[in-house]
Amino acid sequence: MYELGVVYRNITRADRSAADALAHFGSATVHEAMGRVGLLKPYMRPIYSGAQVSGTAVTVLLQPGDNWMMHVAAEQIRPGDIVVATVTAECTDGYFGDLLATSFKARGARALVIDAGVRDVRTLHEMGFPVWSKAISAKGTIKATPGSVNIPIVCAGMLVTPGDVIVADDDGIVCVPAARAAQTLEAAQKREANEGAKRDIFASGVLGLDYYKMREGLAKAGLRYID
Amino acid sequence: MYELGVVYRNITRADRSAADALAHFGSATVHEAMGRVGLLKPYMRPIYSGAQVSGTAVTVLLQPGDNWMMHVAAEQIRPGDIVVATVTAECTDGYFGDLLATSFKARGARALVIDAGVRDVRTLHEMGFPVWSKAISAKGTIKATPGSVNIPIVCAGMLVTPGDVIVADDDGIVCVPAARAAQTLEAAQKREANEGAKRDIFASGVLGLDYYKMREGLAKAGLRYID
Amino acid sequence: MYELGVVYRNITRADRSAADALAHFGSATVHEAMGRVGLLKPYMRPIYSGAQVSGTAVTVLLQPGDNWMMHVAAEQIRPGDIVVATVTAECTDGYFGDLLATSFKARGARALVIDAGVRDVRTLHEMGFPVWSKAISAKGTIKATPGSVNIPIVCAGMLVTPGDVIVADDDGIVCVPAARAAQTLEAAQKREANEGAKRDIFASGVLGLDYYKMREGLAKAGLRYID
Amino acid sequence: MYELGVVYRNITRADRSAADALAHFGSATVHEAMGRVGLLKPYMRPIYSGAQVSGTAVTVLLQPGDNWMMHVAAEQIRPGDIVVATVTAECTDGYFGDLLATSFKARGARALVIDAGVRDVRTLHEMGFPVWSKAISAKGTIKATPGSVNIPIVCAGMLVTPGDVIVADDDGIVCVPAARAAQTLEAAQKREANEGAKRDIFASGVLGLDYYKMREGLAKAGLRYID
Amino acid sequence: MYELGVVYRNITRADRSAADALAHFGSATVHEAMGRVGLLKPYMRPIYSGAQVSGTAVTVLLQPGDNWMMHVAAEQIRPGDIVVATVTAECTDGYFGDLLATSFKARGARALVIDAGVRDVRTLHEMGFPVWSKAISAKGTIKATPGSVNIPIVCAGMLVTPGDVIVADDDGIVCVPAARAAQTLEAAQKREANEGAKRDIFASGVLGLDYYKMREGLAKAGLRYID
Amino acid sequence: MYELGVVYRNITRADRSAADALAHFGSATVHEAMGRVGLLKPYMRPIYSGAQVSGTAVTVLLQPGDNWMMHVAAEQIRPGDIVVATVTAECTDGYFGDLLATSFKARGARALVIDAGVRDVRTLHEMGFPVWSKAISAKGTIKATPGSVNIPIVCAGMLVTPGDVIVADDDGIVCVPAARAAQTLEAAQKREANEGAKRDIFASGVLGLDYYKMREGLAKAGLRYID
Repeated sequence: MYELGVVYRNITRADRSAADALAHFGSATVHEAMGRVGLLKPYMRPIYSGAQVSGTAVTVLLQPGDNWMMHVAAEQIRPGDIVVATVTAECTDGYFGDLLATSFKARGARALVIDAGVRDVRTLHEMGFPVWSKAISAKGTIKATPGSVNIPIVCAGMLVTPGDVIVADDDGIVCVPAARAAQTLEAAQKREANEGAKRDIFASGVLGLDYYKMREGLAKAGLRYID
Repeated sequence: MYELGVVYRNITRADRSAADALAHFGSATVHEAMGRVGLLKPYMRPIYSGAQVSGTAVTVLLQPGDNWMMHVAAEQIRPGDIVVATVTAECTDGYFGDLLATSFKARGARALVIDAGVRDVRTLHEMGFPVWSKAISAKGTIKATPGSVNIPIVCAGMLVTPGDVIVADDDGIVCVPAARAAQTLEAAQKREANEGAKRDIFASGVLGLDYYKMREGLAKAGLRYID
Repeated sequence: MYELGVVYRNITRADRSAADALAHFGSATVHEAMGRVGLLKPYMRPIYSGAQVSGTAVTVLLQPGDNWMMHVAAEQIRPGDIVVATVTAECTDGYFGDLLATSFKARGARALVIDAGVRDVRTLHEMGFPVWSKAISAKGTIKATPGSVNIPIVCAGMLVTPGDVIVADDDGIVCVPAARAAQTLEAAQKREANEGAKRDIFASGVLGLDYYKMREGLAKAGLRYID
Repeated sequence: MYELGVVYRNITRADRSAADALAHFGSATVHEAMGRVGLLKPYMRPIYSGAQVSGTAVTVLLQPGDNWMMHVAAEQIRPGDIVVATVTAECTDGYFGDLLATSFKARGARALVIDAGVRDVRTLHEMGFPVWSKAISAKGTIKATPGSVNIPIVCAGMLVTPGDVIVADDDGIVCVPAARAAQTLEAAQKREANEGAKRDIFASGVLGLDYYKMREGLAKAGLRYID
Repeated sequence: MYELGVVYRNITRADRSAADALAHFGSATVHEAMGRVGLLKPYMRPIYSGAQVSGTAVTVLLQPGDNWMMHVAAEQIRPGDIVVATVTAECTDGYFGDLLATSFKARGARALVIDAGVRDVRTLHEMGFPVWSKAISAKGTIKATPGSVNIPIVCAGMLVTPGDVIVADDDGIVCVPAARAAQTLEAAQKREANEGAKRDIFASGVLGLDYYKMREGLAKAGLRYID
Repeated sequence: MYELGVVYRNITRADRSAADALAHFGSATVHEAMGRVGLLKPYMRPIYSGAQVSGTAVTVLLQPGDNWMMHVAAEQIRPGDIVVATVTAECTDGYFGDLLATSFKARGARALVIDAGVRDVRTLHEMGFPVWSKAISAKGTIKATPGSVNIPIVCAGMLVTPGDVIVADDDGIVCVPAARAAQTLEAAQKREANEGAKRDIFASGVLGLDYYKMREGLAKAGLRYID
């Protein structure tokens, strides 16, 4: 259902402050705050560990083995964006390396999420430009067939609309629709407020069984203890 | 980005005659007629070969190991529909068997496309109810957590909006947006009109190289013949 | 934890009549009758469709690329057995072909379940000797290193103890512990008794929502209908 | 190491009579006759069961998502050839359908072996043109970048040199170097001569343990029987 | 064959000193000392490198997308245990994060081995709580359906009985049955005693061919050298 | 097509200085310099990040679960070599550990590339002996069946001839035929000469669209901008 050969220049980005603030909570908390939806498939992995970012999505639809649209996308990047790219067929080629990363970074991009391969991963790490991808591959690409920029795309099983908030860390990647960014931020904040206290309680040896009052529910569900 | 716990009762289905007529052309021709977009990933396979259908999509978002929403979806089926189902996480459980198929068929459904598992496949074959799925599994499911019906979903990597046209056969599954059904039908008809003649020409020994006048392009692209 | 280099000659097989009777119900019903446990992973597929069998397990632990133990297992087969084989490492080699099938059949085996590859699949089909396997491969094997016969093994993710009942059909494979064969048969019979009536009811257009009285539960779980 | 953009017109095909005679033995026997080498990976599967062929290889190196070279290859086909195709990157697109099959058949090709996808599989079955492939996909391809024809290629993990003999059936695909075709045929014939007699012996209940005199070897290897 | 809805409170743990001492040798040496059995499948990977542990198994059977039993298991942990968890179906959800890790650690657990997904991996690394898993995923789980604790389970293809010794490091995970812990330790010690000397010998340029006296065996096996 | 049971002692290694110089450029640049061929499949991953090497190939054909030929190969290693190993069937066993690494290193090997598994990965990292492999596995291997050394092999989908240059880093592995080493080096040098300047240009905010003059080509290809 993709529209091919188009670049939308004006997209509605999620509220900047919400988009920026979500990074702090990480993908697991944001995913919970969303009601357990919005997660990209877990085969997407960071090329190096420790990065934790959020930003607004600029989307790219690529052709197999062809990274022409990455250059077109670069021009549409604004500070605070994360580029989210997908291919019209499964492909592990290295669509992105240090030169494109330099260009993306100069435009203000914070990261790349791509359902395909990347290369120059050591240099990307040195540059501090994080990428979440399906593969790492030295294989380069051609520039022959247009795809699209800033249309709604499916990336790693999840619909991403231009301007949505992307939250990514070592646990994975969540897409928060622009319209839900503020309420998701609020839910994440509430969730986190409880976590510190809980950690201390569990560290003291209190069991989740007691803290969450699970024993009755388990008994009702038929759980039996055998000595 | 999925909306959970909702059932949309009124969806706009694609034009019935276009939706029905597309079956004849099959997924490969319709995919070409769409400009080579709209295909679900090829890991989706028919549970038996030879079925070729088209219809309007009723969509289902399922929870892992939970087929409750399939029953909810049954009520939303109208004659000529194809149910398209996906799960919030990767799952191969058998969400669908002969009883649900009986119910779906009684409501007028033509097929099921599910990014998960099915069972009772021999009976489904005998009933003539085609299914395209990711897996076949005897594993049953529970009925505990709501998903949604008739929201836009991602199935096998493709966005499917309720009411879109689904075309499926042994080659795969294509999703045609409702708004493009008529023009896609027209393009498919044009495409097919040429095919019969071409087949005769190629059967007579004429080469595609000559018929499509490729020799000059190949030479320009640098192809060399070595004796 | 496998014991290597041993053949247990005397195993306790499940009750014959229960072991035989379970075939009729198929893997999906038996899996439900077991309380949804006992299923082998769904990557195991029949080499041809339509076979539906049950029998008592003779187990084989194989070494990678080595089918010596299949010959040792042949001697331990009694009429009504199904051979269940696994390898100490992942392997897709063709451990079994028409000659071994002839031997197994002569001993009274009903089928082979193997978490590896088989070959001569066309001949096996012609002979009517069903096999469920992970792969089909022409690659032969050597006879160099002992494994074991009739020890408890893990096959496709499930523990199989010699003498357990194996039920296999197009939907998959279930292992029923010998001690639970009779009660599982009874549960399967009860389950099936209801199925015929249900099929007629659903065929008449009654919805599972009404037949199973799901509407209240769905409402409680928060499902909302939107017009 | 691939040479790009070249078509070798004059290749040395294996001895015709050996190339033709090998089909009869099938991939498992030929693989054994070769000393257990030459097999393509078992993820390659026939699009329909029952075909059993042999022929001389015309090789094709394809670009990702681009089937231009298939047309170039068609011209190099001579009666008795089997086209063997690979892609410079992993790809499941449908590179081949009924029109190309018509053309290949008109030139005398017996089959296609392709480490990628094909489409129109129902029509290919009706035409009786067998294909072994990694995938079935309705996705079409472009014609933009040259690959090569009749260079040595790696297909599904095996080196195939133009003119080699390809033997394919439901068990898989074996590549026999042209220089070894005659001796492989001889070895296959010897192997088969024994098979008929063996089948009768095993059908009568004689065990492989006794027929192959394995008991002593097993005891030496430490196998213990436990009652 | 799993027993559902039960928690065994009294399990027989392997001898403490043997269970503790095995960590030092690592999974490769212990696997050899076991006679090359007991290894979990290599798709299980540590969430961070460098951890090397051993301990006694507390087992958990989980339902798909449901981590209720992890809380039940926490209560059964004693100092020196390693929790080994599996799911009744394939699942990559994140069943375990920093709060459960805090609880497990407070109870004396040394690690988690889980044939599913985990999350909060950066925090787990900072806490020094090692996990071996099939996946990393931000996706959370529900608490709705009981599984079991301390029953024999299959984890990543291997049978694990409560109380068995688990040895895990960057090379993988081995399960040593409780009854064989002492003899395995002894065998591992013997094996290691030779390693230091061998390393020096090989570092000096002596070949394994000579040190292990392989040349004669290779010649007998038919190996030919060609100049 | 593999020749079994042979060791070629005299192989023609690529020009030493070219073989050594290629390491500097890394796999991505060398792959481009080769005209985008020669890359091994991207499932091959380094056991630790940061290594970047080149050297001349000594090839090894292994049997499944059998590393005998690794010892035979050790003797054929000369300073500056990289051992490239493959198996006659898919296998993830740990064929290589710290003792063999000590031996290989003593002979002057720079790295191992193996389409199978390795173990002792922590020690290998400490030793600074880099390995690119398909898997990490504690599973050991036997020494029973000869393969070959220094014959042309297929490793991870690519043909590697003894003496070819191997270039490997975090992005992957490229095989440069010995005859093309010098010209590939030259092409890599030219390619790199431009990179530094480009990086500065892109860092200043100049777009690839302008620098590469892509706008006209994109317009010709039909790309439309929508405000």
